[in-house]
Amino acid sequence: MNQTIQTQLNHRTIREFKDTPIGAEVLDTLYNVANRTASSNGLQSFSIIRVTDKKKRQQIAEVCNQSYVIDVPELLIFVVDCYRNAKIAQEQGIGEDYRVSMDSFFQGFTDGCIAAQNTQIAAESLGIGTVYFGSILNDSAKIIEILGLPSYTFPIVGTGLGYPNQEPKLKPRMDIPLKVFKNTYQSEDNYLEAIRDYDKEFENYYDLRFPDRSLDPFSSQVLRALQNPNPKRVKLLNVVEEQGFNLSLDSIK
Amino acid sequence: MNQTIQTQLNHRTIREFKDTPIGAEVLDTLYNVANRTASSNGLQSFSIIRVTDKKKRQQIAEVCNQSYVIDVPELLIFVVDCYRNAKIAQEQGIGEDYRVSMDSFFQGFTDGCIAAQNTQIAAESLGIGTVYFGSILNDSAKIIEILGLPSYTFPIVGTGLGYPNQEPKLKPRMDIPLKVFKNTYQSEDNYLEAIRDYDKEFENYYDLRFPDRSLDPFSSQVLRALQNPNPKRVKLLNVVEEQGFNLSLDSIK
Repeated sequence: MNQTIQTQLNHRTIREFKDTPIGAEVLDTLYNVANRTASSNGLQSFSIIRVTDKKKRQQIAEVCNQSYVIDVPELLIFVVDCYRNAKIAQEQGIGEDYRVSMDSFFQGFTDGCIAAQNTQIAAESLGIGTVYFGSILNDSAKIIEILGLPSYTFPIVGTGLGYPNQEPKLKPRMDIPLKVFKNTYQSEDNYLEAIRDYDKEFENYYDLRFPDRSLDPFSSQVLRALQNPNPKRVKLLNVVEEQGFNLSLDSIK
Repeated sequence: MNQTIQTQLNHRTIREFKDTPIGAEVLDTLYNVANRTASSNGLQSFSIIRVTDKKKRQQIAEVCNQSYVIDVPELLIFVVDCYRNAKIAQEQGIGEDYRVSMDSFFQGFTDGCIAAQNTQIAAESLGIGTVYFGSILNDSAKIIEILGLPSYTFPIVGTGLGYPNQEPKLKPRMDIPLKVFKNTYQSEDNYLEAIRDYDKEFENYYDLRFPDRSLDPFSSQVLRALQNPNPKRVKLLNVVEEQGFNLSLDSIK
């Protein structure tokens, strides 16, 4: 057990922050960490948009339906960036009608995710609290417009950073034997039975966003999430295609 | 600067490992770290397959076209796992013909990526060397078969872990001002000009895989990668659809 792993095991999402700004030197360190992250084929197919403009923050908060997007001290949006490399290839004559593949898209998506996580851990190791905003994908087309994202780019996830002004409890996690398998995927005969204790744990967990009540059991949260898909989020691939990526589908079923 | 950030800034891919196995206690710590990683909507839509079976290792190495997949002390494959939650919903009556959305797919992809990166940093903080195997996607259908992955799952990335038996130099990275923007994406008028110094840096970098020569300039690597797409990788979405995900496309162009 060392400082790094203690930080990681102690991870919790922070949603209330002190006004203390994050210093320029700290931000530079975080960018360096992001930049040193592994990347698919070494192609570094991601970028970061730091959003400081209050009007853009407001617009993003509306997409996210989360007001703390406006006031979080720092907001970094990680994006798939295949634009930069497509330009580098076009300047060498690959042709203006070239379309970037979904292989490149997924390489960029992976690069951006792992860079985001690397950044968050670096921040947390410095006592900074973090929150992921997956909710930017509630309306990916709108985020593309707000940030002026060119073709061959796509938003992945936002991350909010600031010194914590709350101390949430560790959120319960499903048991590892349901998630880690040896050589072959192992299915359960009865998942509700397998997660019975986990479901009960939520009765003892209080989310600081809803201090007056305990959470619903995990199984109820899953059912609600899957029964109420967000109509724009499920059509994300249409926006990916509009951004110029070649979906390369054999057919539509 | 602390231990965590030193580890992160010191990241390099390791491809040669000592025979020393990774102890069971260390593996348990890594699983705990993976399990404590943030997750989209708290749904924890990823799983890990630890591959120890030598026949499976051989098959995966053929997909990856990387022989060190066989002998790396530990091989963990991170997968999108929407199967577990679909089952939890089905056991509560959501209907057997339910199809999981691409929103859930991307949530799972994000969850798996950030858990993989969290795991790698924990490992590196303990002196373990790491390598990502994005090459498992050279043939995602084959990986699904080898690991017995059920519907609503999909391989993301593999990670190899072991005590390093080599000391590669830090690999050059593109300058941060090309990757980090304020409020709006900033395009360059001439990328080849902007990365001229970076291209030159590769002349001083020797990859331990090719000790007798320096690397091609970055711009040449980009052109080669984009000119020679892998035919199976670009059609990855077809396999995603075969795994039961609803692509929800308005049309095919």
